[in-house]
Amino acid sequence: MSSSLPTVLEHIDSHLEAYIDQLQQWVRIPSVSAGASDDASDDLRRAGDFLIDQFSSLGFEAQKIDMGADTNPLILAQSSTAQSSKADGSRPKVLIYGHYDVQGVDNPLAAWEVDPFAGQRQGDLLIARGASDNKGPSFAHIKAVEALLSAGGALPVDVVFLIEGEEECGSTALGRFVAEGRLEALGPFLCTVVSDTSMYGPERPSLTLGLRGIYYTEMTVYGPRQDVHSGLFGGIAPNPNHLLIQALAQLWDGDGGIAVPGFYDAVQPLSAREKALYEALDADEEAYCAELGVDRLIGEAGYSVLERRWTRPTLEVNLLEGGSPRTVIPHRARAALSCRLVPDQDPEQIGAALRQRLTAALPAGTRVEFANQHQAPAYYLSPDDPLVGPALTAMRRGFDIEPVLTREGGSIPILTQIAASTGAPVLLIGLGQITDNWHGPNERFDLRDFHRGIRTSAALLHELAAAP
Amino acid sequence: MSSSLPTVLEHIDSHLEAYIDQLQQWVRIPSVSAGASDDASDDLRRAGDFLIDQFSSLGFEAQKIDMGADTNPLILAQSSTAQSSKADGSRPKVLIYGHYDVQGVDNPLAAWEVDPFAGQRQGDLLIARGASDNKGPSFAHIKAVEALLSAGGALPVDVVFLIEGEEECGSTALGRFVAEGRLEALGPFLCTVVSDTSMYGPERPSLTLGLRGIYYTEMTVYGPRQDVHSGLFGGIAPNPNHLLIQALAQLWDGDGGIAVPGFYDAVQPLSAREKALYEALDADEEAYCAELGVDRLIGEAGYSVLERRWTRPTLEVNLLEGGSPRTVIPHRARAALSCRLVPDQDPEQIGAALRQRLTAALPAGTRVEFANQHQAPAYYLSPDDPLVGPALTAMRRGFDIEPVLTREGGSIPILTQIAASTGAPVLLIGLGQITDNWHGPNERFDLRDFHRGIRTSAALLHELAAAP
Repeated sequence: MSSSLPTVLEHIDSHLEAYIDQLQQWVRIPSVSAGASDDASDDLRRAGDFLIDQFSSLGFEAQKIDMGADTNPLILAQSSTAQSSKADGSRPKVLIYGHYDVQGVDNPLAAWEVDPFAGQRQGDLLIARGASDNKGPSFAHIKAVEALLSAGGALPVDVVFLIEGEEECGSTALGRFVAEGRLEALGPFLCTVVSDTSMYGPERPSLTLGLRGIYYTEMTVYGPRQDVHSGLFGGIAPNPNHLLIQALAQLWDGDGGIAVPGFYDAVQPLSAREKALYEALDADEEAYCAELGVDRLIGEAGYSVLERRWTRPTLEVNLLEGGSPRTVIPHRARAALSCRLVPDQDPEQIGAALRQRLTAALPAGTRVEFANQHQAPAYYLSPDDPLVGPALTAMRRGFDIEPVLTREGGSIPILTQIAASTGAPVLLIGLGQITDNWHGPNERFDLRDFHRGIRTSAALLHELAAAP
Repeated sequence: MSSSLPTVLEHIDSHLEAYIDQLQQWVRIPSVSAGASDDASDDLRRAGDFLIDQFSSLGFEAQKIDMGADTNPLILAQSSTAQSSKADGSRPKVLIYGHYDVQGVDNPLAAWEVDPFAGQRQGDLLIARGASDNKGPSFAHIKAVEALLSAGGALPVDVVFLIEGEEECGSTALGRFVAEGRLEALGPFLCTVVSDTSMYGPERPSLTLGLRGIYYTEMTVYGPRQDVHSGLFGGIAPNPNHLLIQALAQLWDGDGGIAVPGFYDAVQPLSAREKALYEALDADEEAYCAELGVDRLIGEAGYSVLERRWTRPTLEVNLLEGGSPRTVIPHRARAALSCRLVPDQDPEQIGAALRQRLTAALPAGTRVEFANQHQAPAYYLSPDDPLVGPALTAMRRGFDIEPVLTREGGSIPILTQIAASTGAPVLLIGLGQITDNWHGPNERFDLRDFHRGIRTSAALLHELAAAP
């Protein structure tokens, strides 16, 4: 027998400080996976142990799953049959995804105003690496399950948690787990719930209908066999910085668009319904400028701010690196490039077109290499999906605010694989803010959203038990 | 009474191994000034002490001159009146310039096949940072003076050595010394002798008539106030990598020329005489390709390889730096740019035109900064100068090879100041090879050139005593 949802929500409200204390402990484990040193493996193991303890204390069957050398273990935790409030075997099963790894902090470390792993609370904010991406939001779901069990002793649905340790560095272990059919074998699932997106804004909870995909590559152009003196060889030696600049400069047209043949071929126009939804959100360009610290926004002519952020593909040069302040002609120059992709764009095709465009822009015979490529298609859920209604109801209950439908510009590469494997929709319910500075210094998480996120998760499991 | 030149040359031949031993000790002092750590100041002091010991043992009046905080001392050493072979006071005085500081070795350190400061000899080669730039060549002059004194007890001319410790980082102390009139006060000088250029090739000793000048600047373009997530903000946030690329890409025309208004305005056509001299040198493009490890050379259409290296101005992007391999939009992107300048180009004007061109290529309102600018005009000596004959005679004697007249593409910014202050010509007699890899890994110096350089220096002081 489960207790009523109001009782559960009251339990959450009255236990919030304890949940926050635990979250502070959680973010103090520096479980860095992206650009981590060897020392990080201990911290990643401690992070996994923390989760195992959490799930074990809930009575879940929890296990660390090792998917091979040089991967970080998956944490899999399943509610037991005895925890269900239904006895007839018709329980829907809900998959909750999250990640326990975090980005590095050297970007730059000096820009952090507090120790990124001290778990410091400043009023309603928790300032820490991973606070918002993704420890806080995924922990909200764990605490929701704890509250459902504590307040009534049962869960309205079966719950499976799958928390990976490599979201920031390619999801290798989870990719293998899914590819081997092991996720599918745990189902069937009614849906997957993911809180690794952002709210539309403060006090604007949102169900995110789409994520952009990604294509990433690093390009290296070679010149002389080693750095040479620009006085001795300037005027005759090819400079790879120049070659790189001249190739990259050809990637954009004059209108903010991307000049790679075929880049836009598969891109569909936005439906009138979604266009109207996003226009109604009334994006504030001035606020974006203030947030970014810039005078004006850039982008493709003819598209609104939200269309550009969510529904249009991009191409960014994330890294430029070549030579030194010594007056040399360097032996090589590097760039890291990434595209954010929209539904129907094939990352393989886009990658090939981009590499082809760059190679063609270099003089014949130039030595160029592309490395560290990775990619994922976009994810998209129709606003007409039957689970959209229950999700919005739960958010309304958790936040006491009318939620909105959005998309998002970021990528969670593993999500498309999870969606394909489970054949079930993914409900993207963000609890962080886009201003939480994921991947940057002074990452933060609003503890009021943590609170309302726990409430939303409990309400969602309640709603999904009765879903169509 | 000085002994005859043949006796001095024999003395040099028979003492070569001792000179080489001392040179090895000399390059073992890691007197790095460019990009040095604080620890380097001790090594720079030891390098100065080494020179003081050398000059003192020659009976020179040697002193360290401190030109103020954050500078490395100058080493000034003057022969005494008693050391002169002439008693009538009509002795010409010759200034010999060199530098005891060396470039860093982290470019990259892993590319060094030996410890850069072990002073390791491999057959006729000394492999060490500073071996060729400039410890070996400047030491040759010191050993020539030693031989002149040892073999006969007198010098044919008065000699003043001025060895600085900041050639690789801006010549601040020497610049002040010259600007304060203290160099001029040591004169008048017949000429300045400098061995900080290169031979035309192995077995091709050369008197260098010209050096290119330089203009250097670092450019920083700013975007968002901090690195931001390219998924969240891609499509609306200005990316300073893109702004930098697009500005830099406009600096070249399609013909290998530089598209900065006014850049070529002051450049004079090469005289028919010099054109003929350099054509006769019969530069081997294939050899340059092999040396650089490239398939073909680049450069301005319509100019020969040597014209491009020596007589035409260049613009190189030495450094590109922006963002990280994380998929961010960075907050800033940087480039270091340098121009090599030819006679009659005004570095101030060129710098202003370049900055203007780059600023104009950025969208209005972009925040851009130029920093760390430094500059020097080109140096040029006419092949008709009356000291060219004595210099060539001395080189013929030292090397037993017919020398050639050349120019060079590099820059020695302090030289123009020295020439202006002394009002005397500068004789640029290179002893290193352009393949010695100055500023790069595995710098080397051919000890046969060290030997012939000592002989040349002794012969030159002999010739200059009788110069017109």
